[in-house]
Amino acid sequence: MLVVMNKTATAMEINAVVAAIEAKGLTARPIPGGQRVAIGVLHNQGHIDASPFLGLPGVKEVIPVTRPYKLVSREFQPDDSIIRVGENAIGNGHLTIIAGPCAIESERQALTIARLVKQSGAKLFRGGAFKPRTSPYAFQGLGEDGLKILARVRDATGMPVVTEAMDHELFDLVEEYADVVQIGTRNMQNFSLLRRAGRSDKAILLKRGLSATIEEWLMAAEYIMEAGNARVILCERGVRTFAHHSRNTLDLSAVPVVQKESHLPIIVDPSHAAGRRDQVIPLSRAAVAVGAHGLMVEVHHQPETALSDGAQSLYPEQFTELCSQVAPIFRIFRPDGIAPVISIP
Amino acid sequence: MLVVMNKTATAMEINAVVAAIEAKGLTARPIPGGQRVAIGVLHNQGHIDASPFLGLPGVKEVIPVTRPYKLVSREFQPDDSIIRVGENAIGNGHLTIIAGPCAIESERQALTIARLVKQSGAKLFRGGAFKPRTSPYAFQGLGEDGLKILARVRDATGMPVVTEAMDHELFDLVEEYADVVQIGTRNMQNFSLLRRAGRSDKAILLKRGLSATIEEWLMAAEYIMEAGNARVILCERGVRTFAHHSRNTLDLSAVPVVQKESHLPIIVDPSHAAGRRDQVIPLSRAAVAVGAHGLMVEVHHQPETALSDGAQSLYPEQFTELCSQVAPIFRIFRPDGIAPVISIP
Amino acid sequence: MLVVMNKTATAMEINAVVAAIEAKGLTARPIPGGQRVAIGVLHNQGHIDASPFLGLPGVKEVIPVTRPYKLVSREFQPDDSIIRVGENAIGNGHLTIIAGPCAIESERQALTIARLVKQSGAKLFRGGAFKPRTSPYAFQGLGEDGLKILARVRDATGMPVVTEAMDHELFDLVEEYADVVQIGTRNMQNFSLLRRAGRSDKAILLKRGLSATIEEWLMAAEYIMEAGNARVILCERGVRTFAHHSRNTLDLSAVPVVQKESHLPIIVDPSHAAGRRDQVIPLSRAAVAVGAHGLMVEVHHQPETALSDGAQSLYPEQFTELCSQVAPIFRIFRPDGIAPVISIP
Amino acid sequence: MLVVMNKTATAMEINAVVAAIEAKGLTARPIPGGQRVAIGVLHNQGHIDASPFLGLPGVKEVIPVTRPYKLVSREFQPDDSIIRVGENAIGNGHLTIIAGPCAIESERQALTIARLVKQSGAKLFRGGAFKPRTSPYAFQGLGEDGLKILARVRDATGMPVVTEAMDHELFDLVEEYADVVQIGTRNMQNFSLLRRAGRSDKAILLKRGLSATIEEWLMAAEYIMEAGNARVILCERGVRTFAHHSRNTLDLSAVPVVQKESHLPIIVDPSHAAGRRDQVIPLSRAAVAVGAHGLMVEVHHQPETALSDGAQSLYPEQFTELCSQVAPIFRIFRPDGIAPVISIP
Repeated sequence: MLVVMNKTATAMEINAVVAAIEAKGLTARPIPGGQRVAIGVLHNQGHIDASPFLGLPGVKEVIPVTRPYKLVSREFQPDDSIIRVGENAIGNGHLTIIAGPCAIESERQALTIARLVKQSGAKLFRGGAFKPRTSPYAFQGLGEDGLKILARVRDATGMPVVTEAMDHELFDLVEEYADVVQIGTRNMQNFSLLRRAGRSDKAILLKRGLSATIEEWLMAAEYIMEAGNARVILCERGVRTFAHHSRNTLDLSAVPVVQKESHLPIIVDPSHAAGRRDQVIPLSRAAVAVGAHGLMVEVHHQPETALSDGAQSLYPEQFTELCSQVAPIFRIFRPDGIAPVISIP
Repeated sequence: MLVVMNKTATAMEINAVVAAIEAKGLTARPIPGGQRVAIGVLHNQGHIDASPFLGLPGVKEVIPVTRPYKLVSREFQPDDSIIRVGENAIGNGHLTIIAGPCAIESERQALTIARLVKQSGAKLFRGGAFKPRTSPYAFQGLGEDGLKILARVRDATGMPVVTEAMDHELFDLVEEYADVVQIGTRNMQNFSLLRRAGRSDKAILLKRGLSATIEEWLMAAEYIMEAGNARVILCERGVRTFAHHSRNTLDLSAVPVVQKESHLPIIVDPSHAAGRRDQVIPLSRAAVAVGAHGLMVEVHHQPETALSDGAQSLYPEQFTELCSQVAPIFRIFRPDGIAPVISIP
Repeated sequence: MLVVMNKTATAMEINAVVAAIEAKGLTARPIPGGQRVAIGVLHNQGHIDASPFLGLPGVKEVIPVTRPYKLVSREFQPDDSIIRVGENAIGNGHLTIIAGPCAIESERQALTIARLVKQSGAKLFRGGAFKPRTSPYAFQGLGEDGLKILARVRDATGMPVVTEAMDHELFDLVEEYADVVQIGTRNMQNFSLLRRAGRSDKAILLKRGLSATIEEWLMAAEYIMEAGNARVILCERGVRTFAHHSRNTLDLSAVPVVQKESHLPIIVDPSHAAGRRDQVIPLSRAAVAVGAHGLMVEVHHQPETALSDGAQSLYPEQFTELCSQVAPIFRIFRPDGIAPVISIP
Repeated sequence: MLVVMNKTATAMEINAVVAAIEAKGLTARPIPGGQRVAIGVLHNQGHIDASPFLGLPGVKEVIPVTRPYKLVSREFQPDDSIIRVGENAIGNGHLTIIAGPCAIESERQALTIARLVKQSGAKLFRGGAFKPRTSPYAFQGLGEDGLKILARVRDATGMPVVTEAMDHELFDLVEEYADVVQIGTRNMQNFSLLRRAGRSDKAILLKRGLSATIEEWLMAAEYIMEAGNARVILCERGVRTFAHHSRNTLDLSAVPVVQKESHLPIIVDPSHAAGRRDQVIPLSRAAVAVGAHGLMVEVHHQPETALSDGAQSLYPEQFTELCSQVAPIFRIFRPDGIAPVISIP
């Protein structure tokens, strides 16, 4: 339930509504808006009677929230969230491209790639320092050394950096270095990690689980928001199906559905969906055309020697081509939007 | 295996190669090309020794075909097939939009919708006369009366018509009226129907099965081509997965994969994939952006009273909007291509 | 809706109810039961008012049918159907094992296998004469010659034979020879074929489609029953999922669900589900334990030389082992049931 | 690679082989067997040359391991692992039934259920203290209080207890109380948690992920074994598919495949697969018949008032019925096995 206050409601009136909600054993969560405050009512079991709140001073109306997710829903917040990271804005009206290698392998590798992708239009740099790997015998990432390299890349290029935290213990460390902390596919329902992310002041990139429904995904985002962090970016990256011509099946219908259900921005990772380089550019075009707020793409200057996921990493010139194709597509249906500027050398 | 002849090879030399192939108990299928003839070798069990053919007069080279499908493969025919239907060309360089209601309900309904979609840029008209329905108690289509209405729509509007044949017995009847005969999702591996389609001189629209792999789909097309009909258009329409926010999961990575493997054109049906109207425009943009050669979209002037699939049918003004969005997307990466002309009243 | 008559209702009273139903533009289908007749009301659109029927002489009660399938539902017929084929009974209280090769290859092959499987406990013989194959270049079966061999096997062994009809044209031919006509996985929603099967007096074995829901499967059976043939046997044979350690994923929960929803017998085909020999015995045990009314198993005396599906065919001695394991499992929870008698030579 | 020592190999010879392996930058892991020691070679990248080891004193042979998983594979350890928990043995020749409520709700509830299930044949008691829930607003379990109740249930009944640890931080706490620590479906690839479990001396119950392949699942077990804990029990609990007549699709073919690939015991959880009570008994029979080493079943004395998953919990008398059906099935194909003794009051 959402108690919407009058534009002219005073802080005292708001506090009184909060108190009335809490007096019933519920949780009140004031949500400041552009023009008016709304107060979310959480942790109710079943239906709540609206009438006691309707009579309180300053209350304009009471809106039932029909979804199991509350804070992430459009019912709670009708306007698109825009997540700011450094000088960038992610969400409604902006097309944000995140690019970089699967794993940070060395400072030289990271810097080389970062400079190349920045030139082509990437706004944020991605790279794994801690890598979740199916096999305990596979390369697990450079760890904290990788995080330090990411920080140096940010210093050198001005690009904010995105990297994954694999558990809530490592979160402290990752948070120190990253601008956006990624929660990976396998961890989408790692509830301890979600709660830890909710206590962070860093933006969170929440990837969809391999077989997660939209509702489960939004509920995972709700865990983060419920714990206090509203800066959540969703990332569709393909789901597991019987099909094997791509590593996973990119579910682009998730983009309009999420945008209808939630105010949170949603981007698409075509690299992990495809698992092979030759599908990444067409899927990127499709992702931007379907309305995604951005892309996260793997790029490597020498994919054949990459320590992980080389087969799906674009060559730098392919990434330039990608950016030059997606920006005008974005402008067609978002003529007022902000798309990346491509500077082809 | 493919025996490629010299540009200057004579008919006698070609016939001699055909005879040599058949003398080994194999099937020879000459494939005329722009500049030279190639002869496909079919029905072999396992590897064939190329050397006996390499020595024959007029033979340039022998190319092994590594795929289980032969005639549909890029190895057999490297250049894109363009399927002509009336004055339209479907395939490489053309964006073809097919639109119309799920089912033909009356002449008035069909004509009304046909005129509206033509105005907005549709080149072919679709409508079901025989409807495959999960329930024996559901509306099964107008049958031959529906086919007659389709013919009158073609006469009145000049648009070729697409309609489904549900079995090889009905094929004779449908073929009389239709310009393009559709083989539906549930019939993708109805091999009798595929063979019957292969003996037709009408173009065939072959929808992907609900859980068909790309290989199975191309093998179904191979059945049609092997029986003699090369005018096959593939249509991706979503696959069945655990996800339920759309009726099926549109698998757009199928488009680049099919285009890599086969010379046949591939279009996308976003209406059946989505099952709900509000996803059709974004998925259409994505389908064109990924590189599809066309779209097939359900449109109804009064969807709320439609006898089938009303929930996924666009309103005419939504269809106009769709065409006006997809045409410029197509032009971005196919600047020399032919996209529909939108005439907004 | 189901109009249940009194035990003492006369034929005239029954006819009068039928006439009253038809006077409303609906279809009446009398269903004779052990003690009383019920009359099914079909082809209604939406709710029917029961009151006009309740007042008619001889009517005991009117039961609404809440499922989209009618004739196949437990609501229409609460007691298990038992399908008789020759001297065999398939359904409640009987465990029926059907065995034989994937394809009939020769009379010698068919007879050899038939005698071996009969000895071990098989009651019906299976073998394909017309084979649906993914590739047009693969072995397509012996055709009518295969059917003739099946007839000779029946003469020689006394076992009724099961074989597939791939389309409604071939159905006439197959029906002449077979005791049970199989409708294969790829044809589960070939509605012309289902209707043709409904006009047959042979028992029909209806395999579940690769990605069919239980409801779609029962609706396919409804097509057959609605067209007049009540002798339908359902066969679970695995569904397509992301898993690839077996060819398909055997969905054994389908067995209790079908048994709750429908009165029709359901058997399990572990061979096609597994696609590999080493899973067939354990899956057979599981299928019988879950409550299936029978098994259909592929057996070949020389699987390594089989023309199709050799990898999943059991050796005869494995089939003997299978029968000797499943019969006592069946007896545990069906102590009054009839399980196959194993005669190990 | 596995270096197999002679039966008579001395500790010095074994140490010398270990040293030779480590000198090459690899990891050596001696695996004591009944008659001889084998030394696993881990962390190699690609092929290792066997010849340097073949010449060392005491070495009998060198076996290449062809699987990506090593320690869990049958190649490393051909004989079945039997995991001892208290007086119970889980694995080859034993049928172990674990039962209890989804969540611990109170001491009275836990004790009531524990006594009932013990009477019917359960050997271990299960109950959640920390519950992973899709919604942050759902009941999350009693936490440490729940663990204390579990400890009291063990004291009162003598049954070892199984409960879930949701992250590696909570693992310390759970480990203090539990005899078997469960790693849940959503955490199957929570690699930090797997490594923490690998450092524990408690047995680990590793549930299969919702869309995990067998290989990914065994690799998750490899993480635990690689970190030092060999007491891993696998648990199949259904995978996510398009089918919705059961909550998940129980993949029973996983049981023989795992048993072929690995020496670890594998049990089945029919309750979470089905999600509805009426499928639990038939699926339990099937699981035992397919060859599972045990079952984990949810039982509640008052399911309609359960705080979570009541719809899938058996009534105590149903659990008694379940045990009385599965024990004789197990004895049929494991005549020398140890099945639960049912004491029906």
